[in-house]
Amino acid sequence: MGRITSRHKVVRIDLDHGVSTRVEVAAVEEPLEIRVDDEVLTVTMRTPGNDIELAHGLLQAEGIIGARDDVLIARYCADTELMNVLQLQLREAAGVPATAQRSLISHGGCGLCGKTSIDAITASPAYDATAATSTLRVPAERIAQLPDLLREGQTVFDRTGGVHAAGLFGADGDALVIREDIGRHNAVDKVTGWALLQEQPTGDLVAMVSSRASFEIVQKVAMAGIPVLACVSAPSSLAIEAAERLGVTLVAYTRERRMTVCSHPERIALP
Amino acid sequence: MGRITSRHKVVRIDLDHGVSTRVEVAAVEEPLEIRVDDEVLTVTMRTPGNDIELAHGLLQAEGIIGARDDVLIARYCADTELMNVLQLQLREAAGVPATAQRSLISHGGCGLCGKTSIDAITASPAYDATAATSTLRVPAERIAQLPDLLREGQTVFDRTGGVHAAGLFGADGDALVIREDIGRHNAVDKVTGWALLQEQPTGDLVAMVSSRASFEIVQKVAMAGIPVLACVSAPSSLAIEAAERLGVTLVAYTRERRMTVCSHPERIALP
Repeated sequence: MGRITSRHKVVRIDLDHGVSTRVEVAAVEEPLEIRVDDEVLTVTMRTPGNDIELAHGLLQAEGIIGARDDVLIARYCADTELMNVLQLQLREAAGVPATAQRSLISHGGCGLCGKTSIDAITASPAYDATAATSTLRVPAERIAQLPDLLREGQTVFDRTGGVHAAGLFGADGDALVIREDIGRHNAVDKVTGWALLQEQPTGDLVAMVSSRASFEIVQKVAMAGIPVLACVSAPSSLAIEAAERLGVTLVAYTRERRMTVCSHPERIALP
Repeated sequence: MGRITSRHKVVRIDLDHGVSTRVEVAAVEEPLEIRVDDEVLTVTMRTPGNDIELAHGLLQAEGIIGARDDVLIARYCADTELMNVLQLQLREAAGVPATAQRSLISHGGCGLCGKTSIDAITASPAYDATAATSTLRVPAERIAQLPDLLREGQTVFDRTGGVHAAGLFGADGDALVIREDIGRHNAVDKVTGWALLQEQPTGDLVAMVSSRASFEIVQKVAMAGIPVLACVSAPSSLAIEAAERLGVTLVAYTRERRMTVCSHPERIALP
């Protein structure tokens, strides 16, 4: 099970019962590159395991294959020891329809490993280190208030229970913008896009999401230059690793008066 | 708010208090096609609203733009009355890096409207109507047991709280396969891929997911020929519309001894 969960040293803050350092177990998130007949079809961020099933299910959903026999060969790429690149060879009659090529589910990452996915962010010409260099310090008490503030700012959720929210907050806790969407990545894009359009300085902002934190969410927050990301639920392994490397303070399990600081705890002022 | 939520006639089953027909409010899910300099960059499934912010945030996260001035023009395509196609024109110095072209988040759909996204499924040569024509009937009591059975079959969740699960169940409630992943779409791909590899007949199976139901989940289940999909949480508008059109029975809010049948209730046998 070494590839399915990973262990991370975190700081657990309970505002009523104190602070402790502990080891947190996170679900592993790593890129899987799926190559069909030697072309890269897609890169998806997934938890390793049952990758051949995953590739068959994905190709079936996209209408590329309809039966087991449509795939002649499915195997991990031998060029790398990491089992993150799958090569599939299709029966001649099968094939990738043009519509599938642009409709596939892909996520950031080069398909080799999580580390290269993080490297791809810092190598971008548009990357700036505002998030990493920010000297912001936020009281833990303030972080603990954000889930309620986010919820108060939501309008759709109350009626449907089916949407995620993201918000940007000043260090004093005031909500600058809150957006909702069925996709948590879209909700984050809406608030970081708002900041860009407003030409809002981001080096002293805190982003809060109503969901789990994946690699993609950390990527969006880091590219927007926001130094602190709080989420209500669990972080993935690659979210923690990316936050560590990109200088983002990632706070997970922000619920009631407790939270788990997974990276760069120096920005969180303890009670 | 007409475009943010939609109303759907559903059947609410409470095993202890009876059956009623009611109108359920769902969060709207529709494709947004983002065109950059006249090329389709990506199609994302989102809740309409703040689309220009969304596009700016997405382009920033992918390293395509770094500031507001990098976008000269952002407007809805005038070719259609539906506000689902955004056209952006970039400053000459900006541009789409090759890496972004294959790392972008895309989902099924042609970018015009939900209806065409559904049409794209039935138009696929690999589409067969097994799900639609299935005469399966499942007792509501059995559906109500699935969340517990899914939970019992999970191994990673107990330790991390950060993964989704999907399972396939026989009509008598036995679990054929349960898979976990940080991405719910991956978990579904793993179980439908399992069925394809096992050459398992799917016309009398029930799929269960530990999450909400989006268009993409319904697409995967329909393409796999599975007639009943149960989820623990909320459905999106387009999930309901797709299930209705594709002949899939979609059961949402499957919790304790209650559930909401959003499409094709004829397959659910009442107590």
